[in-house]
Amino acid sequence: MRLLQKERGEKEKMNEKILLDEEEIPKAWYNIQADLPSPLDPPINPATMEPLKPEDLAPIFPMELIKQEMSTERWIPIPDAVRDVYRLWRPSPLYRALRLEKKLKTPARIYYKWEGVSPPGSHKPNTAIAQAYYNMKEGIERIATETGAGQWGSALAFGTMLFGLKCTVYMVGASYDRKPYRKVMMEMWNAELYRSPSKNTEFGRKLLEEDPDTPGSLGIAISEGVEDAATHDDTHYALGSVLNHVLLHQSVIGLEAKKAFEQIDEYPDVIYGCVGGGSNFFGSCSPFVADKIRGDKPDLKVVGCEPMACPTLTKGLYLYDFGDCAEMTPLLKMFTLGHTFVPPPIHAGGLRYHGDAPLLCKLVKDGWIDAVAYHQNEVFKAAKLFAETEGIIIAPETAHGVNAVINEALRCKEEGKEEVIFFNNSGHGHFDMGSYDVFLRGKLVDYEYPAELVKQSLAKVPKV
Amino acid sequence: MRLLQKERGEKEKMNEKILLDEEEIPKAWYNIQADLPSPLDPPINPATMEPLKPEDLAPIFPMELIKQEMSTERWIPIPDAVRDVYRLWRPSPLYRALRLEKKLKTPARIYYKWEGVSPPGSHKPNTAIAQAYYNMKEGIERIATETGAGQWGSALAFGTMLFGLKCTVYMVGASYDRKPYRKVMMEMWNAELYRSPSKNTEFGRKLLEEDPDTPGSLGIAISEGVEDAATHDDTHYALGSVLNHVLLHQSVIGLEAKKAFEQIDEYPDVIYGCVGGGSNFFGSCSPFVADKIRGDKPDLKVVGCEPMACPTLTKGLYLYDFGDCAEMTPLLKMFTLGHTFVPPPIHAGGLRYHGDAPLLCKLVKDGWIDAVAYHQNEVFKAAKLFAETEGIIIAPETAHGVNAVINEALRCKEEGKEEVIFFNNSGHGHFDMGSYDVFLRGKLVDYEYPAELVKQSLAKVPKV
Repeated sequence: MRLLQKERGEKEKMNEKILLDEEEIPKAWYNIQADLPSPLDPPINPATMEPLKPEDLAPIFPMELIKQEMSTERWIPIPDAVRDVYRLWRPSPLYRALRLEKKLKTPARIYYKWEGVSPPGSHKPNTAIAQAYYNMKEGIERIATETGAGQWGSALAFGTMLFGLKCTVYMVGASYDRKPYRKVMMEMWNAELYRSPSKNTEFGRKLLEEDPDTPGSLGIAISEGVEDAATHDDTHYALGSVLNHVLLHQSVIGLEAKKAFEQIDEYPDVIYGCVGGGSNFFGSCSPFVADKIRGDKPDLKVVGCEPMACPTLTKGLYLYDFGDCAEMTPLLKMFTLGHTFVPPPIHAGGLRYHGDAPLLCKLVKDGWIDAVAYHQNEVFKAAKLFAETEGIIIAPETAHGVNAVINEALRCKEEGKEEVIFFNNSGHGHFDMGSYDVFLRGKLVDYEYPAELVKQSLAKVPKV
Repeated sequence: MRLLQKERGEKEKMNEKILLDEEEIPKAWYNIQADLPSPLDPPINPATMEPLKPEDLAPIFPMELIKQEMSTERWIPIPDAVRDVYRLWRPSPLYRALRLEKKLKTPARIYYKWEGVSPPGSHKPNTAIAQAYYNMKEGIERIATETGAGQWGSALAFGTMLFGLKCTVYMVGASYDRKPYRKVMMEMWNAELYRSPSKNTEFGRKLLEEDPDTPGSLGIAISEGVEDAATHDDTHYALGSVLNHVLLHQSVIGLEAKKAFEQIDEYPDVIYGCVGGGSNFFGSCSPFVADKIRGDKPDLKVVGCEPMACPTLTKGLYLYDFGDCAEMTPLLKMFTLGHTFVPPPIHAGGLRYHGDAPLLCKLVKDGWIDAVAYHQNEVFKAAKLFAETEGIIIAPETAHGVNAVINEALRCKEEGKEEVIFFNNSGHGHFDMGSYDVFLRGKLVDYEYPAELVKQSLAKVPKV
C-alpha cells in the first residue's frame, strides 16, 4: 500500500514518529547465517592454518558468545536480563523525515531508525549489554577492550557497569589526547582507561620502547586488549563490531524497524547505512536482506556507505587477513585494505578500519549488497542539512549513510520516482563538535584514496 | 493504590518506562495564574513605576506571548504547529528508577521525567519552539537572546531554525571561550553568535571600552539581547526562563507526568527539581501544585533545589528587582540576591542567576513550595551515583534535584517509609564533561555562601 503523503492525511504534519510498544522489543536475535545461500568461509587459526575451533576462542570469549559466533540457528533468544536493559531506551523510534523530504522537494519517503537515544548515544550498547551479560553469567570479573573514537568503549563501560563487571579500555593514543570528553564519559561509568600503547601490556611496552611518542592505532589497541584478556584468568576480551555475534545482536535494529514498517504498511525500496566494521548497517538491514535472499523482495537495494579514505568494500580485496595490525587475531575472510594499512586521519574515526565484518563482506561479494564511498566534505554537508531539517546533530560516521540518502532522494526527484528510503541513524554527534567546527570553518580536508599505501599493505596480507 | 514492587510483579524488572501515546501530548498549556490563592504582584515599569502595560513589552515580544504573560485563563491552547514539533521527542518518557532504588535499599519509589531526549538535550525547547512560532506568526524575522552555559541558546537556535527565523545569540564571554562545543552546536543550527560583551551593541561597546578583557556576565548578555531587539524593527527578544509565559510552556512536562502517573495509579508524595530561573522545576510541578492549592493533595511536598553559591530561594529577599545587571528590564517581584550579584563560578552555570521566576517565588513565599541549597561536591556525587545506576549522565544543574531525591530516599529507608518521589530529569551532561573531569580528579571547590557580596548587591536593589 503506497499512499501519497496527502492521501495519508499528513499534509499538516512535519514529522512522523513510529514507536513500538515495549512488548515488541524482539525476544530473539535474527541470525542471517541460517539463510545464507552458501555457508560463510570459516575463520582460520593462523598457528595451525586450520578452521578455528570453539576452544581456540575460549581464553578470551565466554562459551555462549562463541556458540553464537558459529551458530546457524535462525533465531537466538535474547535473555530477559538483556531485554530488561534494552528497555531503558528501546524500542528506538522510527522517524519519517518529512522536513528533509520537503527541503529536497523529493517524492521519496525517507525513514530512519534513531539509535542515538541510548545513554552512550549510539547503537553500540545493543551488543555491549549482551556481551557483558554472557561474561557475567560465566563468572568473568573484568572485560578488556580497545576504543578508537570512544563510542565502543563508552558502550562497554555502560554495559559492564550495569552487570557489575570491571572494564579496562585501551584508547588509541591520538584519541585519548584529542577526545578528553569521551574519556570522562567512560570514567563516569567506572571504566579504567589506558592511553594505548600502554605500559600495561608486553606489546605496549615494546612499542613504547621503540617510540615513546607513538600516537597508537586501533590495531595496536586491539592487540593490547587481547593480550590483557589472554593473560588474566578473570578477564575476557570484547569487540564492538566485525564478528558474527556482534552483528547478530545488532539485528534488534532491523527487527524493530521491520515491525514498525509493517504497522504503517510500508517496505523499503532501498536501505543505506554507514560501514566501519559493519555492525550497525548489517544489524539494520539483515532482516530485510533475508527477504531478498528468500526471493520475496528481489528489487530491494541495500548499500553500505564508507569513506573514500578507507574504502574497504569498494576498493579492498576479498581475502583472508588479520583483524589487527599485530597479527594476534584469527584470519578472517573479508574485504581488506591490508591489516597494516593506516588510513588518513578523517574525522569519522569509527570508519577507519582496514577490514569489514565477514558476514557483510560475503553478501557484498555475492552481489546481495552494494557499496559506495564518499569524501568527508560532502558527508559533513549532508550532516549539516540533516541538522537543519530534522534537528538532530548526527555523528560524522552516520552522515555517510545520510549523504547517500540525500543523493537517492534527489535522484527520485529528477526521475519523478516515489521510493521508500530507509537508513539507520546510528548515533549523535555530541562528542564530534570539534570536527564540525573544522567543517564550519571550511578547513576540512578531502583525502584522496591512498592507492599506493593500500598496495603496500595488501602485499603484507598472508597467503592462505 | 500503593502496591509493593513485588506485588506489582516487578521483581524481575530493573527499570520501568511509562510512555504516553503521541495523542496524549497536551493540547493546552496549564496556567497556574488561574488557580493562585491571591494574584501575582505585577511587573513594574521602572520609568513610570506603574504596573507594566502590554504595549510596554511590544517592542521586544510578540503580542500572543505578552497576552500569555498576563493571562489568568487556566488552559491556553497549544498551536498545532508547536505540537507538531513537540512530536519530534515528546511525549518524553517517565522512568521508574529501580536500579537507583535498589542501590539505596530504599522502600521509596523514585520516578523521573526525562527531558534530555530533545535534540538540544534539555527541557528548553518546550518554550523555544513556542516562542519561535509566535514570533514567526507576527512576521518577525530574527530573535536575539543571551545564553550562559549554552542550553538556552541551543534550544532557541533549534526552534528558530525550524520556523525559518534567524537567531542571534549573545554568549557570556567566559562560556564562549570555555565551551566551544555548545557554540558549534548553535552554529550547526545556523545561529549567529557573539562573544558578550560584543561590539554589536552600544552597551557592549561601552563595556569593552572600559575593560577589553571582561569575561562578561549573564546580566550583560541579557542587556545586549534586549538592546539588539529594541533597536531593530524586524527583531524580537526571547528569554529562556523566569517569565510567566516561559513557565506556562514548560507545563507540558508536568501535564505529561501527571497522565503517566494516572496510568500506573501513582501520585507523588514529594517533588524535587533544580532551580535556576525556575522554569523546568515549575513546569514539572505546577499541575501537581494546583492539586495542593485546590486542597486535593494537602500533604504533597514540593521542593526547589539550588546551589549554595547562589541560593536565591533560601537566602534571597522577596523584593522588586531588575532582571538584569544593566537595569534595562522591568522590575519583578521575586526572591533576589540583588541584580548586581555575581555568583562564584560553580559548574552548574544554568543556576547562576540572581533572581527567580515571580510565579515560583510567590508560591515559595506563600508556603506552597519549599527550597533547599547544596554544595556542588555532593551534587556531583549524586550525579555520579545516578550515572552508575540509571546509566544516564545528567547535567550538573539537574543533579541538584537528584541529590535531594537521594537524601529523601535514604530518609525513607531510615524511617521505613514507602514514599513516591518524583523529579524532572531536565537534561543530559554531554557538554559538561569538563566539569565532571574536575570532579573526578577531586578538584571541585565548594564555595561558601557569599554573604558579604549579597549584602552589598541587595543594597543596590531599588526601593519600590
